[in-house]
Amino acid sequence: MEKYMIGIDVGGTNTVAGLVSTQGEIVDKCTFLTQRDMAPEDQRDKAPVYFDEYMENLYKCIDHLIANMPKDGELAGIGLGAPNANYFNGLIFDAPNLHWIDRTSGKRQLTCHIVKLIKEHYSSLRIAVAMTNDANAAAMGELYYGGGRSLVHKDLIEVTLGTGLGSGFISNGDIVYGHNSFAGELGHIVVVPDGRLCGCGNSGCLETYGSATGIVRTANQLLASSKWRDTSKLREIINNQKREISCKDVGDAANAGDELALETLDITARYIGLGIATAVAITAPKKVFIFGGPTKMGEVLLKPIRKYFNKFVLNNFRDTEIVFSELPDDAAVMGAAALAANEVKKLGLD
Amino acid sequence: MEKYMIGIDVGGTNTVAGLVSTQGEIVDKCTFLTQRDMAPEDQRDKAPVYFDEYMENLYKCIDHLIANMPKDGELAGIGLGAPNANYFNGLIFDAPNLHWIDRTSGKRQLTCHIVKLIKEHYSSLRIAVAMTNDANAAAMGELYYGGGRSLVHKDLIEVTLGTGLGSGFISNGDIVYGHNSFAGELGHIVVVPDGRLCGCGNSGCLETYGSATGIVRTANQLLASSKWRDTSKLREIINNQKREISCKDVGDAANAGDELALETLDITARYIGLGIATAVAITAPKKVFIFGGPTKMGEVLLKPIRKYFNKFVLNNFRDTEIVFSELPDDAAVMGAAALAANEVKKLGLD
Repeated sequence: MEKYMIGIDVGGTNTVAGLVSTQGEIVDKCTFLTQRDMAPEDQRDKAPVYFDEYMENLYKCIDHLIANMPKDGELAGIGLGAPNANYFNGLIFDAPNLHWIDRTSGKRQLTCHIVKLIKEHYSSLRIAVAMTNDANAAAMGELYYGGGRSLVHKDLIEVTLGTGLGSGFISNGDIVYGHNSFAGELGHIVVVPDGRLCGCGNSGCLETYGSATGIVRTANQLLASSKWRDTSKLREIINNQKREISCKDVGDAANAGDELALETLDITARYIGLGIATAVAITAPKKVFIFGGPTKMGEVLLKPIRKYFNKFVLNNFRDTEIVFSELPDDAAVMGAAALAANEVKKLGLD
Repeated sequence: MEKYMIGIDVGGTNTVAGLVSTQGEIVDKCTFLTQRDMAPEDQRDKAPVYFDEYMENLYKCIDHLIANMPKDGELAGIGLGAPNANYFNGLIFDAPNLHWIDRTSGKRQLTCHIVKLIKEHYSSLRIAVAMTNDANAAAMGELYYGGGRSLVHKDLIEVTLGTGLGSGFISNGDIVYGHNSFAGELGHIVVVPDGRLCGCGNSGCLETYGSATGIVRTANQLLASSKWRDTSKLREIINNQKREISCKDVGDAANAGDELALETLDITARYIGLGIATAVAITAPKKVFIFGGPTKMGEVLLKPIRKYFNKFVLNNFRDTEIVFSELPDDAAVMGAAALAANEVKKLGLD
């Protein structure tokens, strides 16, 4: 019998579940709306808003995937990637973008024991169930189905660039969870003491410089300085298209040779390179993977990151490679499936 | 039968081996000179200089400990802590302060396969043999015999302050080795880009500010500035005792209320606090232990470290405790013994 995993990505808008083979193929998929208020206007009455409704929809989705299992296959594990997810106790606590309602109290459900509920619902099956946050799941996905497959020592760092800057650390083949399950917060190491204000309440966090949002902040700062006042393509966007610039605009401009955009990415890369050099000095993986929207910029971002990494990293760690993620499509589902596969291994169910 | 471990500290001057019980007591000990040129003048002819001589002396020392084993005991493992020691291949390569000579070539022996030789020599015994560097061994010692014994999740960071600043990271109950066995270089994260020149060739490493040497550098910088020119006790040492100040002098002066010394430790603590906050954001242990000579200063050092840690660390990691090491005497031997105990567990020989 071939072992299959179900990987579930709990997003603010959609929940996506995929049935994943050992080779990392998604053989079937199922999607539903996570919560009513995030759904398109005409679908709101169909989307769940009560937490128990959400769980019922999730079971239906899992049942569907189990029912469509290939003939030679059996389900070995279910993995979930979700915001604020705690691996140790299997619950999502106070996730800012999840607003499920507790049916009894009528109030927002802060504490959601998803793993416990899934385990109880499928207690007749001999399966592993585990949950972690998105960046950790991405790191595990990279190890099982992406660029980490060829590693001799199962150590890697996954850096995810988006609205924020997340990270997942794999050491000795497992995620570094720390004592509270929330290790791997590379976005919140301070790279500029008393620097930019961060959403976490602190100042100078890497996230405020290295995320997509940070890139736009840096570009806007440069646009405000006299040296760059009028010459940049990004200025044209603001003046002619009457809108704010985006991270993609910066990347497009940089790839077209725009000086201000290139300077923006050099500043960004200096902080990301410093942050990665710091992380590598601590966990020393052979490879660091960068994932997320900004990687679409390509070499114009990667090259200066490598330059600054080499500047800041300890000599004998220079052989660590910084590369873009090789996670396949549906990265979040694949990461969750990899988490399940690893849990199956840890529990000796393989 | 009770399991005993032999912990061996390979130092530049002496090699110390101890027979350690499960409770962490050293029941017997054996010491010999590591290399002739480090020995006192009148003992040089007795100390080994050839690497094969060194190994013969090491075997004699191990044999002595095995011969003196308590009646109810049996040897389960041998652990070694040594500079530049590689856990994966069991060799010491090019350790700056070890100058053994290869008898065949007459030249310095760069590559020393200590673990392989011990395993061969004691192949009739069913024992685990492992080696790592001093800071990693100290971290494992803290976990098995020090302040880490009470931890629910076996995650901790050991920061060792001395001439340099070393560190060892325990995650999920094992040392974080990385792909090259040299992870845990907290001393070489850059805290001041283009700051003080470091022995590693880089600039602004934490070690240049946070080590005992860094503390003296900071005190001397302050002594050179006009504000502090004449008022400090440390100035008196230089003027009256005609000698350079030491890290201990700074600690003594600070504990006596000397303003310059207190400012020195505040600057030092800011960098150490930032470095620990960075490390905690990545591996999230419940406790961070500080080990080494400067800890004798006491609260005058620890209090500002905690202050700056709280300033720089991500909100939900503030419950991480920073404390002084609780490693017993012979910390290096105990760390090596703990490494052996952990290797016994990993190999299932327990």
